[in-house]
Amino acid sequence: MALVVQKYGGSSVQSAERIKRVAERIVRTRKDGNDVVVVASAMGDTTDELTDLALAVHPSPPPRELDMLLTSGERISNALLAMAITALGGRARSFTGSQAGMITTGKHGDARIIDVTPGRIFSALSEDGIALVAGFQGVSADSKEITTLGRGGSDTTAVAMAAAMKADVCEIYTDVDGVYSADPRIVPNAKLLETITYEEMLEMAACGAKVLHLRAVEYARREGVPLRVRSSYTDQPGTTIVGSIEELSVEQAVLTGVAHDRSEAKVTVVGVPDQPGFAARIFRAVADVDVNIDMVLQNVSHLRTGKTDVTFTLPVKDGPRAVEALTAVQDEVGHEEVIYDEHVGKVTLVGAGMRSHPGVTATFCESLAEAGVNIEMMNTSEIRISALIRDTQLDDAVRALHEAFDLGGDTEAVVHAGTGR
Amino acid sequence: MALVVQKYGGSSVQSAERIKRVAERIVRTRKDGNDVVVVASAMGDTTDELTDLALAVHPSPPPRELDMLLTSGERISNALLAMAITALGGRARSFTGSQAGMITTGKHGDARIIDVTPGRIFSALSEDGIALVAGFQGVSADSKEITTLGRGGSDTTAVAMAAAMKADVCEIYTDVDGVYSADPRIVPNAKLLETITYEEMLEMAACGAKVLHLRAVEYARREGVPLRVRSSYTDQPGTTIVGSIEELSVEQAVLTGVAHDRSEAKVTVVGVPDQPGFAARIFRAVADVDVNIDMVLQNVSHLRTGKTDVTFTLPVKDGPRAVEALTAVQDEVGHEEVIYDEHVGKVTLVGAGMRSHPGVTATFCESLAEAGVNIEMMNTSEIRISALIRDTQLDDAVRALHEAFDLGGDTEAVVHAGTGR
Repeated sequence: MALVVQKYGGSSVQSAERIKRVAERIVRTRKDGNDVVVVASAMGDTTDELTDLALAVHPSPPPRELDMLLTSGERISNALLAMAITALGGRARSFTGSQAGMITTGKHGDARIIDVTPGRIFSALSEDGIALVAGFQGVSADSKEITTLGRGGSDTTAVAMAAAMKADVCEIYTDVDGVYSADPRIVPNAKLLETITYEEMLEMAACGAKVLHLRAVEYARREGVPLRVRSSYTDQPGTTIVGSIEELSVEQAVLTGVAHDRSEAKVTVVGVPDQPGFAARIFRAVADVDVNIDMVLQNVSHLRTGKTDVTFTLPVKDGPRAVEALTAVQDEVGHEEVIYDEHVGKVTLVGAGMRSHPGVTATFCESLAEAGVNIEMMNTSEIRISALIRDTQLDDAVRALHEAFDLGGDTEAVVHAGTGR
Repeated sequence: MALVVQKYGGSSVQSAERIKRVAERIVRTRKDGNDVVVVASAMGDTTDELTDLALAVHPSPPPRELDMLLTSGERISNALLAMAITALGGRARSFTGSQAGMITTGKHGDARIIDVTPGRIFSALSEDGIALVAGFQGVSADSKEITTLGRGGSDTTAVAMAAAMKADVCEIYTDVDGVYSADPRIVPNAKLLETITYEEMLEMAACGAKVLHLRAVEYARREGVPLRVRSSYTDQPGTTIVGSIEELSVEQAVLTGVAHDRSEAKVTVVGVPDQPGFAARIFRAVADVDVNIDMVLQNVSHLRTGKTDVTFTLPVKDGPRAVEALTAVQDEVGHEEVIYDEHVGKVTLVGAGMRSHPGVTATFCESLAEAGVNIEMMNTSEIRISALIRDTQLDDAVRALHEAFDLGGDTEAVVHAGTGR
């Protein structure tokens, strides 16, 4: 008998009707001979509605109370799901994150999982075969306060339960069929991937692919939890995320997909003295206001002036805050100006194959150039090449790369031999 | 510094606007130098909406899951109230029934309070001065499951917290000004009572007065918690419920009010053999289907037939079930038929004064007769006289009694001297 963990997102449980459909799937999984642990998010717009109510009584709701408020959403959906399963003749009980043993740090709104002690869930499974756990929440180790887990919280809850209970698989149900080689809305012949390694999925998620949260994938990779992304509307098997790039043979290592990201902005600090310590002061000023930097480019200094420009990207929502912080230290650092540009986009090619196939970088640049796309910054890892470009050209860039590397349809991605990387 | 417990019902917290008004009152109470513990019900129609959702996924929702579902309502309203208080510059945190130490039996949907250990609330008060406790819920002593307290649950939570914390007063906020000598919608000159003893309030609540739940009043009486019923829309002091009828002097003991009740039905079991054991079998059959009996009348048996009729009243909602149970034992008991009558109403005169003032019963019967109201059954206690009449005559009966005993306006209730009780 296998242990299956299934996570259902807000749109999957947005109404009594959808809840009954999900209950049917859960009961089917049980009837196939599996023990099933279910993690459900709050129904549809519940979290937004509750947040609106909070803002109606406080302009900046206290984090502790916001957690007490928002966790009601998952409580509601999981209790209803348990009822629906019972109506079909199954047995199931719902549990809060606290009851399920989800122990976290004390940071309200963005708690991290410290430990998972799912004894009560094991007991429930031995009696009923199905147990529901409210996602996105836990209880703090030190002060026994209810906490929420921040972005990707429900996905992470599911993976954490799967890891602690040594589940055979953790299935993330969503409204797309799985992980594609590119966004199918941009690239019509995008291919649904059968499998993808943890590291490749991490890069895809980090560079814009929204189907899975980075945090949940990293947790799965670290704990070795087999992940599957599937549609809650069909019976298609979806995409399995498993294995490390280290385990791939040269033949297995291919180019996997293209991700794109519109959520970044570019900051250029112009005329920074090209001496030790000045760039550091710029990045410290930005770090001090809690802003994470992504891509960095430090231009060659001007021989005459002895100054250089420092360019970096960051999340758009943090842009104004970073500019303010840099302007505040302008006298101290001595830069001439701070240029802020929101109209950038990042396009990324991901694949274990690029480690062993020379010429990928060249093909990457050539195909973008042929599409008339100018590369403003580049950034690479062992299995990734990212380029910062004009956001208006993102769709063209995605299509160009996808085409150039044959990522679509029935042909596997191949790289053009004979060109150096 | 006094400790005040305040309970706000669903209509008092039905919107963000009402929540802000209630928060203002709580902050005012704090500024007056009190520690304040607040118990809030779920917002407006939340409990009904959640119940509807449950019924949409299960025709008869499992009680454990219904408790997990419904308790979200109080969590939401108390978290929002804490936020609203903070927005006004106050300090406040919300707690679930479990966190507040509300320990109960394990009967989902109708749990009883076993113990209250409010240590965490005392701590919160010493830090903030204001603490919010979700009403209507607790945690079961044996299995650590979340439970709801059934009818009157939030009032009972407030009284239980007040008792455990030795509060100076427990204020129940509602949408009427307090306890009246009769329903003001029926009797225009009904008087707002300044004070009323626990026992008189118990009788009023048991006999139809809806302003306070019987259960909460009994808990308050047993623990000696001073209760106050007030309007959440004004600053009027309302009605204080305190003291025992034993403590009243003869001068203080008066007639207090008239209650009425439309929620009962009458069952007559015709032609029961007038021998030991038969009436018992009738009541056992009804008890076996969980029906509580109120008034009972056993007629004098017919000398010729040796049979008698047994009549009793019960809640209308239990009527059909009781009739079914009696019909099922008809052969065994031997009664001729079961007559069911829903068109009855109960009118009740309450007051400690009737113990020491003869003639009350006579005046009671005379005033009803003068109003053309026929008494079908009567039932009394030390401080109460109830009569079962036609429900169509209830309003007339209430007015007649209220007038006959001068319960309205500025004159205190007096009884007509010189007539025996």
